[in-house]
Amino acid sequence: MSEVLSFVDANLARFRAELYDFLRIPSISAKSEHDGDTRRAAEWLSDALARAGLTSEVIDTPGHPIVLGEWRGAGPDAPTVLIYGHYDVQPPEPLDEWESPPFEPTERDGRVYARGSADDKGQLYMHVKALEAHLQAAGSLPINVVVLAEGEEEVGSVNLVPFVEANAGRLACDSVIISDSNMYAEGMPSVLFSLRGLAYFEIHVKGARSDLHSGQFGGTVANPGNALATIIASLKDADGRITIDGFYDDVLEWDEETRNQIRSLPFDAEEYRKELKVPALSGEKGWTPLEQLWIRPTCDVNGILCGYTGEGAKTVLPNKAMAKVSFRLVPGQSPEKVKTLLEAHLEKVAPPGVTVELVELHGGRPWKAKVEGKLVEAASSALEAAFGTPAVLQGEGGSIPIVVDFEEKLKASALLVGFGLPGCNLHAPNEWFALDAYEKGIGALVRLYGGLG
Amino acid sequence: MSEVLSFVDANLARFRAELYDFLRIPSISAKSEHDGDTRRAAEWLSDALARAGLTSEVIDTPGHPIVLGEWRGAGPDAPTVLIYGHYDVQPPEPLDEWESPPFEPTERDGRVYARGSADDKGQLYMHVKALEAHLQAAGSLPINVVVLAEGEEEVGSVNLVPFVEANAGRLACDSVIISDSNMYAEGMPSVLFSLRGLAYFEIHVKGARSDLHSGQFGGTVANPGNALATIIASLKDADGRITIDGFYDDVLEWDEETRNQIRSLPFDAEEYRKELKVPALSGEKGWTPLEQLWIRPTCDVNGILCGYTGEGAKTVLPNKAMAKVSFRLVPGQSPEKVKTLLEAHLEKVAPPGVTVELVELHGGRPWKAKVEGKLVEAASSALEAAFGTPAVLQGEGGSIPIVVDFEEKLKASALLVGFGLPGCNLHAPNEWFALDAYEKGIGALVRLYGGLG
Repeated sequence: MSEVLSFVDANLARFRAELYDFLRIPSISAKSEHDGDTRRAAEWLSDALARAGLTSEVIDTPGHPIVLGEWRGAGPDAPTVLIYGHYDVQPPEPLDEWESPPFEPTERDGRVYARGSADDKGQLYMHVKALEAHLQAAGSLPINVVVLAEGEEEVGSVNLVPFVEANAGRLACDSVIISDSNMYAEGMPSVLFSLRGLAYFEIHVKGARSDLHSGQFGGTVANPGNALATIIASLKDADGRITIDGFYDDVLEWDEETRNQIRSLPFDAEEYRKELKVPALSGEKGWTPLEQLWIRPTCDVNGILCGYTGEGAKTVLPNKAMAKVSFRLVPGQSPEKVKTLLEAHLEKVAPPGVTVELVELHGGRPWKAKVEGKLVEAASSALEAAFGTPAVLQGEGGSIPIVVDFEEKLKASALLVGFGLPGCNLHAPNEWFALDAYEKGIGALVRLYGGLG
Repeated sequence: MSEVLSFVDANLARFRAELYDFLRIPSISAKSEHDGDTRRAAEWLSDALARAGLTSEVIDTPGHPIVLGEWRGAGPDAPTVLIYGHYDVQPPEPLDEWESPPFEPTERDGRVYARGSADDKGQLYMHVKALEAHLQAAGSLPINVVVLAEGEEEVGSVNLVPFVEANAGRLACDSVIISDSNMYAEGMPSVLFSLRGLAYFEIHVKGARSDLHSGQFGGTVANPGNALATIIASLKDADGRITIDGFYDDVLEWDEETRNQIRSLPFDAEEYRKELKVPALSGEKGWTPLEQLWIRPTCDVNGILCGYTGEGAKTVLPNKAMAKVSFRLVPGQSPEKVKTLLEAHLEKVAPPGVTVELVELHGGRPWKAKVEGKLVEAASSALEAAFGTPAVLQGEGGSIPIVVDFEEKLKASALLVGFGLPGCNLHAPNEWFALDAYEKGIGALVRLYGGLG
């Protein structure tokens, strides 16, 4: 192990320079004019895997290609680990808010600023370099490894699950390791104990045959805008509790240990409030902000559109209104069940004089980690050794639906260990990745592979 | 009188042809590329007044010109009547929904289809022709007449009140007659007993410093979209009653006679519901649809905008939300008072964690006619004689704020007698005016002028 770690130390400058080459490729999966760049990033990554010592190929899908790297030299009795990540990035817009160009990695204050630096090229490439260190310095790995990198994570991963299903034999593994999340704080490495799921809907309210004059008809027909507001208002009470019958029935009651773990984490609510510039924090009563973020579900409006929204006073009585409303779900809940409960709720609260339609747009299941066992133990000690401080267990408010799919379809356990930092501007201008986390993180992954062997 | 009416009968074909010339001028006040056309319509109208026998001029304003016709031959002891109308029209869009070109008057089924045919060129020109009949056939009128026609009614009449104030002496009159509304039904002429007023606002709700990720922050901060929905929902109860404290305090309790008058009008609620294609009518409980339209105030959403409203599922927690909300007011109420009450209401219901701002966009006072006295009596008998059926008193759900200004600034009583028909597509494609109403209405106005002498 020590020669592998020495190899890392001796090559950190090169590892950084290579990452910057990766970051210079604008692999924006959402934009077809960048399809060439996206493929170039896949090929670049495949070459990097080959140089690290894996066999690698770029596999076409109906969308952007999948990169598959393999090293099976540990033999059939050794465990197999699948490392998942993505090489595509979010669009960089608005461009004028970037302090340095999004695809020209720029170092400032111990960080590299570039689109994709944290999400996810930087974190994915740490794995590639940790694998290289083992294979180049020790000539082998104590585990078999499959690296699966997709180019459609930022556009919904539509081709990933079919690929995993079709290649379940080749992808068979004991564990799935994903680095596409954050540490709890600077210098505080962490392992995730949960992800929230998602149930995303549009609610459409329809009234009269056409928009009407608010003077000539107002007072006699229901207004879809007022009706939609009534419906949305009915979803939560003044304590921030969701009022859909049965909504909390399946919500996991976390064990005391996890809740103590959450409460033990340093968190300055006033600092958090000030940073968000809100007059007050506001969430479900009786829970701390970290609990509200990680172990409690939400109901949030994502968008509303109704009637005339331009300048001035148009006296229209609109004939339709639409809201996008989504729920973050916690372990125990499912998007299918929430849809059924919401349908029943709408039936109950829809005002007379309008018709209400529910459209499901997107669903993702929540995930709960198996925090006991070799996987998390190995990760914890690797992180502690690399960062010099014990790793903490934390939840994550966002959703990575593919995690549950990996566990189910590959019958493996997932480990989510991330190296981004809070505030690193994911999906926003001036995305950054801490160089210290990049370098220490490679060391942590080297130790993790060793520990799993 | 009989020779005046014979003159009308003998010239109906010409009266119609002249109106069509007027309608061919696309005097769209909202569109600066039509400024030349709008001025051309003013000049055409001024010429028509002169040919009818009045002195007439086109008076410049900071916007579109005002046309002022005068005939003061009845002498200082005779009453003076101011006739108000407008020669500008709404934009005709969407053009592809017109069955014949909007500025090429086309007769079908006893109607003329053209933009401005009902609103208001047709109704205004009826007055011009009735005046001409008196002046050409009898050589005089029993009343002094001022015709005031503006070219900015469809864009807010911004220059009209200042003009009336600056020329109050010249415009001094006993009565103001306005024909810019509808009869109750085909063959049922009417006089208005009221107009509703308007108080139009924007409500802005603001949350965090920027849009946030609904997974990373959802559950800890108030969502301006949910908050705005709660605010809108708080404005009315399930019985359709507005819940703002004090909102109904100033609402006029109409006399039994007016309420009986309203109840005696033929109205088929099921037909009305079917025509509007709503699953059920829905308004303030305890009132009939005509009462809801004419003598009860409303609270209607005119527009809502919040967050992401495009295709698909964007998991944004928006940081702002806006609604346009307006109230139709009834006699007794004022937009200023309603603003004060609404401000207090928002203070009371605004959820924590957001800031709420109220912006007033437009206000117009409601109007109540003096239905006893010579003006309405003369109108009623003139209408009955011309249409062969008694005129009814009716309310109007829309607003014409200038009516109250005329009454106050000129110390005159207003008479609103309209000749459009319900469903005549005001402000919509295929606007039409019934030829029968045009011709009988000229006869009614001839009699009305006679009756006022």
